[in-house]
Amino acid sequence: MKTINDGDDVLLHLDQKRTYLVRVEVDKQFHTHKGFVELGDLIGKPYGSPLLSSLGVKFHALQPLIRDRIVKTDRRTQVLYPKDIGYLLLQLNIGTGCRVVEAGTGSGALTCALANAVKPDGKVYSYEINPDFQRVAARNIERARLMDYVELKEGDVTEVIDETDVDAVVLDMATPWLVVPRAHLALKGSGVLATFSPTIEQVMKTVSAIREHPFVDLETIELILRRITVARNRTRPQTLMIGHSGYITTARKVLEKESS
Amino acid sequence: MKTINDGDDVLLHLDQKRTYLVRVEVDKQFHTHKGFVELGDLIGKPYGSPLLSSLGVKFHALQPLIRDRIVKTDRRTQVLYPKDIGYLLLQLNIGTGCRVVEAGTGSGALTCALANAVKPDGKVYSYEINPDFQRVAARNIERARLMDYVELKEGDVTEVIDETDVDAVVLDMATPWLVVPRAHLALKGSGVLATFSPTIEQVMKTVSAIREHPFVDLETIELILRRITVARNRTRPQTLMIGHSGYITTARKVLEKESS
Amino acid sequence: MKTINDGDDVLLHLDQKRTYLVRVEVDKQFHTHKGFVELGDLIGKPYGSPLLSSLGVKFHALQPLIRDRIVKTDRRTQVLYPKDIGYLLLQLNIGTGCRVVEAGTGSGALTCALANAVKPDGKVYSYEINPDFQRVAARNIERARLMDYVELKEGDVTEVIDETDVDAVVLDMATPWLVVPRAHLALKGSGVLATFSPTIEQVMKTVSAIREHPFVDLETIELILRRITVARNRTRPQTLMIGHSGYITTARKVLEKESS
Amino acid sequence: MKTINDGDDVLLHLDQKRTYLVRVEVDKQFHTHKGFVELGDLIGKPYGSPLLSSLGVKFHALQPLIRDRIVKTDRRTQVLYPKDIGYLLLQLNIGTGCRVVEAGTGSGALTCALANAVKPDGKVYSYEINPDFQRVAARNIERARLMDYVELKEGDVTEVIDETDVDAVVLDMATPWLVVPRAHLALKGSGVLATFSPTIEQVMKTVSAIREHPFVDLETIELILRRITVARNRTRPQTLMIGHSGYITTARKVLEKESS
Repeated sequence: MKTINDGDDVLLHLDQKRTYLVRVEVDKQFHTHKGFVELGDLIGKPYGSPLLSSLGVKFHALQPLIRDRIVKTDRRTQVLYPKDIGYLLLQLNIGTGCRVVEAGTGSGALTCALANAVKPDGKVYSYEINPDFQRVAARNIERARLMDYVELKEGDVTEVIDETDVDAVVLDMATPWLVVPRAHLALKGSGVLATFSPTIEQVMKTVSAIREHPFVDLETIELILRRITVARNRTRPQTLMIGHSGYITTARKVLEKESS
Repeated sequence: MKTINDGDDVLLHLDQKRTYLVRVEVDKQFHTHKGFVELGDLIGKPYGSPLLSSLGVKFHALQPLIRDRIVKTDRRTQVLYPKDIGYLLLQLNIGTGCRVVEAGTGSGALTCALANAVKPDGKVYSYEINPDFQRVAARNIERARLMDYVELKEGDVTEVIDETDVDAVVLDMATPWLVVPRAHLALKGSGVLATFSPTIEQVMKTVSAIREHPFVDLETIELILRRITVARNRTRPQTLMIGHSGYITTARKVLEKESS
Repeated sequence: MKTINDGDDVLLHLDQKRTYLVRVEVDKQFHTHKGFVELGDLIGKPYGSPLLSSLGVKFHALQPLIRDRIVKTDRRTQVLYPKDIGYLLLQLNIGTGCRVVEAGTGSGALTCALANAVKPDGKVYSYEINPDFQRVAARNIERARLMDYVELKEGDVTEVIDETDVDAVVLDMATPWLVVPRAHLALKGSGVLATFSPTIEQVMKTVSAIREHPFVDLETIELILRRITVARNRTRPQTLMIGHSGYITTARKVLEKESS
Repeated sequence: MKTINDGDDVLLHLDQKRTYLVRVEVDKQFHTHKGFVELGDLIGKPYGSPLLSSLGVKFHALQPLIRDRIVKTDRRTQVLYPKDIGYLLLQLNIGTGCRVVEAGTGSGALTCALANAVKPDGKVYSYEINPDFQRVAARNIERARLMDYVELKEGDVTEVIDETDVDAVVLDMATPWLVVPRAHLALKGSGVLATFSPTIEQVMKTVSAIREHPFVDLETIELILRRITVARNRTRPQTLMIGHSGYITTARKVLEKESS
């Protein structure tokens, strides 16, 4: 059974809305409005263990999942939700050993999800033009211990993508349509391109650009996630919901003529 | 560059609605209403290559993705869509090395997606009580070359789950609430339980059962996928859509008292 | 109590999916695959009465509602659903006495709903450029006995709208943006314009045109209707649904300078 | 052309999110954070007229629509949105001359919409057991000048409904299923029953009760309204939305045996 070590992250769980991603260290205290907890006490305990605060309130020390890291990531650049990332991973067929190009890195939320899926043999080549975002992303990826599977690149993918024969290219940036020609070059035959865009104008331009290159299986979708309250005589979809995050467009590269 | 070998599956793509999952073999022909294609001609070609039928119609030979196998799977038992499977994989945190219990196996669509995500070191323990379904599933899993990462088990998970300390349990069956006690036993601390159910009555019973055991982070959602037609002056959500597949309920196991 | 008269329409109801809008006449038979019914037998009976077919199958004779006429209307030109029409009536504030301009008439489904709402003192001025549609609409409106409240006009509203000081203008046609200037002229101060368009390009052009004229309270929405199966242990949203009919854009005319 | 009179309500419109329902009176000022406006200046002006505040900010004086009154209504008891009310009016076939039973009155928002639709010859019989709500509703209905078409009744519809042969019964209350037997008695043949309920448990009980009485054409739906931002290069569904207000169940009364 895996136990918590000094230096490990845990997700400290108080209730559905109050969770904290913290690093466990000897003699380190974490203060909350429900009292402080001694994080060092968790060392050697299994994940899922309870932990009482100084005020006697019970927390649980969960193992941080990729989706926790997505949600906890610095949101300045972040519009992708777990629903979108789960769909992207499946559409892009990301699995162990895959080589993936991503742009932009943003806060690294999608990068972490990709890296976790390609490890231990694959690699995520993640491009970002904004060095501030790159710094934030590097910290998030390192914290998730996924940097071995990521190569952070400062560059403009509308001008150059260094990699070739990659399994997938995923674009979460303002002008994905400008990258389509280079994405096509970078992809292997049958490789998948995916873009995520909040506005329909972005989608229109991206789809037009994709149609000018040899791609098949082009489709655009959006995913709507509805949370349901389930409780005796109160079961119903929740009143407030996120109505829209973005559209996901995917296509697969084909080869135009038979190779010799 | 990876090329197509004798014995490989390809997804023969004519257009958005007409794709065929076929095995490439020397001297094998595949007949369609657009003429036949010589599958053997694909050997040694890269994925994505074009292929002309006897009537001069162009097909493309795509590499089959997990989502193709989900969609092509025998649908007798199948209600999970790629949107649901992508979300489940992320919620369950399935990655290389994970040990997962699944019930029921059904046609093996989710099993394939799980196996692809846990390979090469993980394992999917998939339970099914109906031997007919199990036979179908075995064929689908073998065809996807994922059987090394799957253990098909004929058994009733309402009575016994052999495994312990597993990372995740996922239930796509008629009575998930009956399995909750055994799922809790099988899970490691902080491990994730997920259930997929078409009806709200199933959800109510499952949520009640989960609330009687030490779980946190309980939530029920549904995912609605909307396809968008994107074309000059015709851009709009499509008229017909799948309005509902099922509800997904997830929760994480916690430990009730501090282990010694 | 109102009873069925010779010459009245009834909605013959067999079950949820099989209803028939028929005219009651002495000695008239209506033939179905469940045998024939003697429609004349309904004369003098109250609406809601049962009626046995020659094969002993029970039908009910419902009073036709506006929504029945909408659904039964010739669908060649029809994209508006009851959900959209109900919303339009409220947004446009249609009530007894209102004067409304509509274009195009189409099959007359929305015309009937408008006429029913403005009667007995109001009037619907309904423009249509296609005489074939107009003929179909006239038949539908007469059958609903609402022609007293409708003036069918053959004309192109992109060129002229005869009426002024109307309470509302509603456009269900391919190019609503071309009509916005004339709609503004036709409306009274504080009057409401509404357009219904299936594609987002139509909406973009219409919203741009509205922004160039003195309107306030501009908004675009779409309504998604979800049918729920409610039955013991089978309660769930239905699998197949209409994912999109069209976008509804509304705005209210304001006066630019104080009238003297 | 209709002009604003002393004592009329106007909807003072600053922008999409800031509108004020105020009564116009001689020498009355209305104060906002954008300065005050002289409401008396509006007397004799047409609806839609502009009005400058003391700080030179332009407002417009719109004619209050039923939907404005719905939105401005005291929200303590209010869950119905315009989308739901528009649908209810059409489903219930409410028009001039209709006699409708409503329970509960709540804040009177639906009552106003019903009264506006049945005037001048119809009547809304609106039951409420809470006298506080009734007082609020009376004020809202009088303000909308619709009290001539409403009879406010303090009473419990689970025990008695005085009216018979009504065209429609609409229930927006916690326990609609308890009213189904009396609603059936009150309705004329072919009359329509509608209920609005936030939770699925309410729907289940209501549908069960309806199935025990002679009703046909039973259906449950929900309406999801999505607001779209339409602006150059920013067109997209809005991020935050109301995910759920309630389910609408409708059915039509039939007669069990042929009347003699």
